[in-house]
Amino acid sequence: MKSLVLEQKHELSLRDFPQIDREEEVLGPREVRIKLHTVGICGSDVHYYTHGRIGPFVVTEPMILGHEASGTVIEIGDEVTTLAVGDRVCAEPGIPDPNSRATRLGIYNVDPAVRFWATPPVHGILRPTCVHPEAFTFKLPDAVSFAEAAMVEPLAVGVHAATKARVKPGDIGVVMGAGPIGLVTALSALAAGCARVYVTDLAEKKLEIAASLSPAIVPVNVGRETLAERVLAETDGWGADVVWEATGSPKAAAGVFEPLAPGGCVTLIGGQPDPISYDAGAAMVREARVENIFRYAHVFPRCLAMLASGAIDVKPLITRTFAFDDSVAAFERAAEAPPEDVKMQIELPQ
Amino acid sequence: MKSLVLEQKHELSLRDFPQIDREEEVLGPREVRIKLHTVGICGSDVHYYTHGRIGPFVVTEPMILGHEASGTVIEIGDEVTTLAVGDRVCAEPGIPDPNSRATRLGIYNVDPAVRFWATPPVHGILRPTCVHPEAFTFKLPDAVSFAEAAMVEPLAVGVHAATKARVKPGDIGVVMGAGPIGLVTALSALAAGCARVYVTDLAEKKLEIAASLSPAIVPVNVGRETLAERVLAETDGWGADVVWEATGSPKAAAGVFEPLAPGGCVTLIGGQPDPISYDAGAAMVREARVENIFRYAHVFPRCLAMLASGAIDVKPLITRTFAFDDSVAAFERAAEAPPEDVKMQIELPQ
Amino acid sequence: MKSLVLEQKHELSLRDFPQIDREEEVLGPREVRIKLHTVGICGSDVHYYTHGRIGPFVVTEPMILGHEASGTVIEIGDEVTTLAVGDRVCAEPGIPDPNSRATRLGIYNVDPAVRFWATPPVHGILRPTCVHPEAFTFKLPDAVSFAEAAMVEPLAVGVHAATKARVKPGDIGVVMGAGPIGLVTALSALAAGCARVYVTDLAEKKLEIAASLSPAIVPVNVGRETLAERVLAETDGWGADVVWEATGSPKAAAGVFEPLAPGGCVTLIGGQPDPISYDAGAAMVREARVENIFRYAHVFPRCLAMLASGAIDVKPLITRTFAFDDSVAAFERAAEAPPEDVKMQIELPQ
Amino acid sequence: MKSLVLEQKHELSLRDFPQIDREEEVLGPREVRIKLHTVGICGSDVHYYTHGRIGPFVVTEPMILGHEASGTVIEIGDEVTTLAVGDRVCAEPGIPDPNSRATRLGIYNVDPAVRFWATPPVHGILRPTCVHPEAFTFKLPDAVSFAEAAMVEPLAVGVHAATKARVKPGDIGVVMGAGPIGLVTALSALAAGCARVYVTDLAEKKLEIAASLSPAIVPVNVGRETLAERVLAETDGWGADVVWEATGSPKAAAGVFEPLAPGGCVTLIGGQPDPISYDAGAAMVREARVENIFRYAHVFPRCLAMLASGAIDVKPLITRTFAFDDSVAAFERAAEAPPEDVKMQIELPQ
Repeated sequence: MKSLVLEQKHELSLRDFPQIDREEEVLGPREVRIKLHTVGICGSDVHYYTHGRIGPFVVTEPMILGHEASGTVIEIGDEVTTLAVGDRVCAEPGIPDPNSRATRLGIYNVDPAVRFWATPPVHGILRPTCVHPEAFTFKLPDAVSFAEAAMVEPLAVGVHAATKARVKPGDIGVVMGAGPIGLVTALSALAAGCARVYVTDLAEKKLEIAASLSPAIVPVNVGRETLAERVLAETDGWGADVVWEATGSPKAAAGVFEPLAPGGCVTLIGGQPDPISYDAGAAMVREARVENIFRYAHVFPRCLAMLASGAIDVKPLITRTFAFDDSVAAFERAAEAPPEDVKMQIELPQ
Repeated sequence: MKSLVLEQKHELSLRDFPQIDREEEVLGPREVRIKLHTVGICGSDVHYYTHGRIGPFVVTEPMILGHEASGTVIEIGDEVTTLAVGDRVCAEPGIPDPNSRATRLGIYNVDPAVRFWATPPVHGILRPTCVHPEAFTFKLPDAVSFAEAAMVEPLAVGVHAATKARVKPGDIGVVMGAGPIGLVTALSALAAGCARVYVTDLAEKKLEIAASLSPAIVPVNVGRETLAERVLAETDGWGADVVWEATGSPKAAAGVFEPLAPGGCVTLIGGQPDPISYDAGAAMVREARVENIFRYAHVFPRCLAMLASGAIDVKPLITRTFAFDDSVAAFERAAEAPPEDVKMQIELPQ
Repeated sequence: MKSLVLEQKHELSLRDFPQIDREEEVLGPREVRIKLHTVGICGSDVHYYTHGRIGPFVVTEPMILGHEASGTVIEIGDEVTTLAVGDRVCAEPGIPDPNSRATRLGIYNVDPAVRFWATPPVHGILRPTCVHPEAFTFKLPDAVSFAEAAMVEPLAVGVHAATKARVKPGDIGVVMGAGPIGLVTALSALAAGCARVYVTDLAEKKLEIAASLSPAIVPVNVGRETLAERVLAETDGWGADVVWEATGSPKAAAGVFEPLAPGGCVTLIGGQPDPISYDAGAAMVREARVENIFRYAHVFPRCLAMLASGAIDVKPLITRTFAFDDSVAAFERAAEAPPEDVKMQIELPQ
Repeated sequence: MKSLVLEQKHELSLRDFPQIDREEEVLGPREVRIKLHTVGICGSDVHYYTHGRIGPFVVTEPMILGHEASGTVIEIGDEVTTLAVGDRVCAEPGIPDPNSRATRLGIYNVDPAVRFWATPPVHGILRPTCVHPEAFTFKLPDAVSFAEAAMVEPLAVGVHAATKARVKPGDIGVVMGAGPIGLVTALSALAAGCARVYVTDLAEKKLEIAASLSPAIVPVNVGRETLAERVLAETDGWGADVVWEATGSPKAAAGVFEPLAPGGCVTLIGGQPDPISYDAGAAMVREARVENIFRYAHVFPRCLAMLASGAIDVKPLITRTFAFDDSVAAFERAAEAPPEDVKMQIELPQ
């Protein structure tokens, strides 16, 4: 049973990984076994491949990659009540301690004990099957394909970021960055009520893709024009109600308050390895609220409901699909980050 | 200069109304004069026509009808800065006391001193021109027609109701009632983030119209099936996150908690002349939040931005247009309330 | 090992109850065994005694009473990490299903599967020892006595009600009803930021007790004066920001909006067995928000912290203490409800 | 009619200032004339004296100092309805444009057009009388003295900061900095529901004063111990629910997330002239909410109500009172900033 294994930095192999099979032989009473169908490639997967680490998380042992997953339930534990064999599902990659204070408060994403797929020392799911808690496995509506379902994980980041921002209908939004997270955030911002969303980037190709998603998305090439000037000019000098920072660039983050309206909200999504520069004076005179985002909580079922009804359409973001046997090539391409590829996915043999 | 005058209950005439012209001869420094273009017929206009009163508001003198208006600025006061002659605009029909406590807090809609068009003793705007405060007159984006702009007033009720409910992306909504307010509320609920919205009514024709607005609208004929059963069956027994009551029917209002999820929100839009029955036990075990809605505040510009970007489309709701000379016939038809008519509008001569 | 057993309506006995001992012989890995010290008598305990039922909950088998408890940990399960033998503790009487959707969302109080002490068929804790989940057992700060700790359960209702109302510093509050729940709500409202709180009742003695708790509590005898008139007169006609209904009287509930300010919040605490009359018009013109309260969630540690620091003082509410051997007499007195008794407690032999 | 005039940096004089009298000769219809009674000395007044500027606001012409004021109404405009001659009052020093978008939304403090006493080119009120809008002048309850009323302005900063943080009853708070703003914030945090508040400083004398205000205030000398260690040790490793930064020190601001609990709120009060270092990673893993504070809005009446009822007591903060004739000496002492002086006030001749 082959898995996609990151042996060490820059070295991927598609090979048997018997340890996982042994570990997962027995199914807990509230667990299900999932046959994986589609797995998306995330920037963090690629980063482990190219750098061997993300911040404090270092790949010291061979690790299976992948955490954006959909598949089919093939076995259920004794106490499972909400899922059945044959159910098409997607799964949250992070499993918190059910007894932690954060989990009991309903904010399990900030539980420090979360174990997250493809984050050392936890293996990912670019492999034939996995075992997962029922509580973090979600049945797909008929209208949602495996490919769309494997998009729920990144989409959840955007939906969570739109939720935390507390968008009001008719808000004007700005999303800094037209990468995959920026785009799902823009779609989420529109779904959450924004009248229009300015999406910024330096790469014209990415902005074209952004603009193609909705007439309510306004692309802004910040290499050619100043974001704040544009937004203020088109809002009678008032500014944007919400700004989402999705570049992870310290330079972009330093300017988040400039296009912001008085009483507005800045939402920081892009992870920043180092402290950033925060324009306290600009934040103060606007009485800005700043929300810091870490993954998501309780949004997978919401994403599925929105995909099923058409409230959000992620299909245009899936720009390339590889067979599992071509996984290594897929990662090599992903490492080049061609701007025309938003989300690449891998399909496992069924 | 002819106006549409409700002389008394059941008696409309299209005639000169010189008093208004005299009153509005002088323009205040922060006022504008608007040449009316399109005026929608609201249920309250019709109710004054057929009943001569709404609750404590009694028509004792001839009164001009109409409060859903768009038009063109033809004169501006000395201190007006945000509007110019020639601007296409729509206008809020209610003008609060700018010095009241409610207005200063930003909740001007609950200022008891609000003066509202076509609410005795204040005249409406089914007449050639009117004078209005700059602060409650809004320039139309190029993409918004006069007909759509005259829909902003009813739409604002729905957008306000969606805002107060604090919809989160992926919520499941219920709108009770598929009349004009129910439909704008359903559209607003979707724009605000609902994954799908169940819309109820007894009239099949109205439900057909509702369903035609979006694939995310689910019509429920409550004459044939039980709302709560349907919603619970399709939400794994959990219920709807938000229920909007838009029928104004005491019977419907008595059942608002039945389809509601634990921790959910009920939003009461439909005015109720008498006390209603409130199932305190059902509300308690769900810890329901109940929001009571009165008109709207600060949402006209939001509506315009959403109409301009396509986030909301009200055009399918405009089902019939009359020339001003046919106003009386328009009201006669409106009084019959044929279910295939959602919103009828009157166009004034330009 | 004697327990206070409600054999049937009107019949209490202090006797051995061996079944409980057998059931609780084995301690789960995340459970603790508590030696009870002090137990408060709640109105619901008394109601089971005098009526044999509360709504759908009927006493059909002998049931041990009591759910307001403090005591000492005498044994801990294998996986318990936050408590040790000898710890002084108090305990939440309701245990939800840890896997329910409500519990995972952090709103475990609205989980329909909650098992609650002294609610048929679940036994209460007027007995020497009990077994309880670690997650719902809380260590007492040194400054909090057993008697105060046994007050945390009713206090939690008030603190939860103040939290849900989202009191802002300087709000004007009204608490309808000066019974035990009304008084803890008034204390909680002040602790939560109310500048002053009007407390109503018909019994002068209860109002005297209320007024003695804080100079910021204003007693209003609604048998002699009209609440709304008084509140409006003393708030420049604006009204109260928050009204808590804590009488459970349909008549009181029907008038909750009268003293309320525009944009204010009504919080319904008092359980109502039947639908109540809801003045939708009065709620609408104020755009009232209504919060419905069901017990509490996550507030026991908050209560303990406030008792420890002196932010809230419940000692004046403990008006009488009985030895366990006098439990039956205690309930007989409680059934008479003398207005000078706020909270009666029973001390178990140590 | 003598005024306290800052002629230029380091030069104060008590002298006639006839220009003001001429400007204010005529009273607008919604204005009142106030005879000043007590004026507090604020750090910003002192900063203008010692530095001649605060950020972009430069003293280029002689300017009257003072903006924390109480007094008596001695004349009212024609349309004034809520105040009468003889009323004891205090006044908000900032007057926004009543027609600005921010003001109409109810967030007048972020209106860029605000004119603020003793901020160039606007004069302050260390002078016999002033003219002020009725809307920003507040009648004192009988129980509130002129001295306490002159404390409302700084208190309002703390109350606003506590309000924006949305304190829940039982929260654990941290206030960084035991200067006047830190202390009013600590009092406000307790009034708003904090169970206890850790107050930090380097000056032992200031911490002694802080600790003397309430048993629920815990002083922490950050020269001797690490704040985060202390807070985590005393909250079972969870952290504080709210951290208020009131030092204005970039170094303190850089560490605001360290003592913060998951899901907690950081509130930045201390103005920062330059961008600060923001630990985005620490903010992210906690999903911190950050509120940036700019003065206050709508809180003066709230402060007065809390002072009147005893919910907040500011009297211990008034540590020294000068006669108006000794104003220059008062400022000289204030410039030395002796740690035993929290708030110094000046009384004008009556």
